[in-house]
Amino acid sequence: MNKQVVLGIDIGGTNTVYGLIGQDGHVHHHEEIPTKGSSPVEGLIDRIEASINDILDQNSESELLGIGIGAPNGNHFSGMIQDPPNLSWGNVNVIDLFKDRFNCKVDLTNDANAAALGEKHYGIAKEMTDFVVITLGTGLGSGIFSGGRLLYGHDGFAGEMGHMPIEDDGRDCNCGNKGCLESYASASGIKKTIRTFLDDDPDDEFLNSINGDKVDGFLLDAEFDKGNDIARRIYEYTGNKLGQGLAQAATLLSPQAFIFYGGFSNAGNRILDPAKRSMDRHLINGHAGKIDLLRSGLPQGQAGILGAASLIWAP
Amino acid sequence: MNKQVVLGIDIGGTNTVYGLIGQDGHVHHHEEIPTKGSSPVEGLIDRIEASINDILDQNSESELLGIGIGAPNGNHFSGMIQDPPNLSWGNVNVIDLFKDRFNCKVDLTNDANAAALGEKHYGIAKEMTDFVVITLGTGLGSGIFSGGRLLYGHDGFAGEMGHMPIEDDGRDCNCGNKGCLESYASASGIKKTIRTFLDDDPDDEFLNSINGDKVDGFLLDAEFDKGNDIARRIYEYTGNKLGQGLAQAATLLSPQAFIFYGGFSNAGNRILDPAKRSMDRHLINGHAGKIDLLRSGLPQGQAGILGAASLIWAP
Repeated sequence: MNKQVVLGIDIGGTNTVYGLIGQDGHVHHHEEIPTKGSSPVEGLIDRIEASINDILDQNSESELLGIGIGAPNGNHFSGMIQDPPNLSWGNVNVIDLFKDRFNCKVDLTNDANAAALGEKHYGIAKEMTDFVVITLGTGLGSGIFSGGRLLYGHDGFAGEMGHMPIEDDGRDCNCGNKGCLESYASASGIKKTIRTFLDDDPDDEFLNSINGDKVDGFLLDAEFDKGNDIARRIYEYTGNKLGQGLAQAATLLSPQAFIFYGGFSNAGNRILDPAKRSMDRHLINGHAGKIDLLRSGLPQGQAGILGAASLIWAP
Repeated sequence: MNKQVVLGIDIGGTNTVYGLIGQDGHVHHHEEIPTKGSSPVEGLIDRIEASINDILDQNSESELLGIGIGAPNGNHFSGMIQDPPNLSWGNVNVIDLFKDRFNCKVDLTNDANAAALGEKHYGIAKEMTDFVVITLGTGLGSGIFSGGRLLYGHDGFAGEMGHMPIEDDGRDCNCGNKGCLESYASASGIKKTIRTFLDDDPDDEFLNSINGDKVDGFLLDAEFDKGNDIARRIYEYTGNKLGQGLAQAATLLSPQAFIFYGGFSNAGNRILDPAKRSMDRHLINGHAGKIDLLRSGLPQGQAGILGAASLIWAP
């Protein structure tokens, strides 16, 4: 193990990933544990602390230089995780909590920003100055690089692309608003789309088989690949809405690329092809055809911890 | 006159404003001349050159430090004005053309970015790091400051907020696309709204009186102030669409304020009040109620030349 390492932590609604990371981006002891977000945050910190202290004890020449954290609603400016969705923690000063346990520098950003930092420092965006990382999972998050820097906005809450309104008076979103991009282009959005399709076609066998609490992405992808027309229509509809949101963001930011990350991005070109067509259709001539839709090239789940670690390695 | 001055030029579709500007933002010899955009650009440069040389000859102790230019489709990276709307110039390397006449540094950006730079260095946004200046005229332009810096995007064409799609399959825009913000929230958008209202109410006297090539903003404002319900509905409809666009931009950028500039911004709260209500309705809770809609406090038409001059004074 390198002499100096940084602990990168990517806190998710279901699982938390952490690892000890060298300055070159080498990941040591990468682990994934359940977040247990209905229990107090201290329980999660206890488990991470025990595991990391074990590893550091076994590698006595190693030094923990700092801790970088990516978390839903993690605010870089305030150091707080603020009322995160799917976690019953309210407002938590996670920087102070980690500093109490580990005597080192601790920094925080939100999960999508961490993924964007990971792509910039260690992934596909190394040579890019202007790009947007979009995390596609239960929800939709985004981290924006512009002119070589992450955009935070005046309060640390820039990049809430999942809650960008794409339809006036559109679908109800979990945030309480209507017509947010996330309510169409995310796993929870696809659930809503399946229900809408069922309204028109209540007896369809395939639609009924995938209608439930959790969308089975593997099944949807497999059926798409077999030529199932409903699977095709689901991705076409979802990609069309996603492309509308991408066009809105691109018109403001003029990025080189959108980079997709997260479980639902495994659908790959099944969703990105219709999204690209829709984006280009919604863009003015100067932008259309010039912006790439790419998938993260980093090992599954590592962009988040690498980017979190870069908060310390490349502050 | 100050010893060192910068020539700030704001090229518009109809008129061009220029002035000699000291480092403190004092404007000397502010002039407005017709752009004559159907003639070659060299004619405009000839007229500016003659006028500025006269002034400099009369103030022999003065030194022209540089020239900053704001122009529609002016690209900071390429130094080109690229196929500007309402000007028959095609692609013009305006930096080289000015350097040939004046032996000094020349820099270029687009008109909305120049206005944003003017507000940042000399106007209402001095203390702000995150804000968006929106120019409301025949069209709608925007210049974005984020984290204290102007956003250019990877090709210099960030901030095309007028062409952000706010309606899927919406109104035809002059750019060839559909549903762009500008096709609702601008003088040309209001013209389209008046025609739509006339379709429902073809005999309305007031609507017929304002239906024409150019919307008379003074008349519309005067009728609004008298309680004319149609004038109220025009601003309510326009403000509602504008607010939708502001919400989209704010969700990505989390700015402190939107600052309005340009002829059509003289409507003031007649349009900004409904725009603010609509923006807040379309924002997630974390953002709603926190973003100010302000009007430029700089003398009419000066934000552009001040910002253009700041390209040299504060590069």
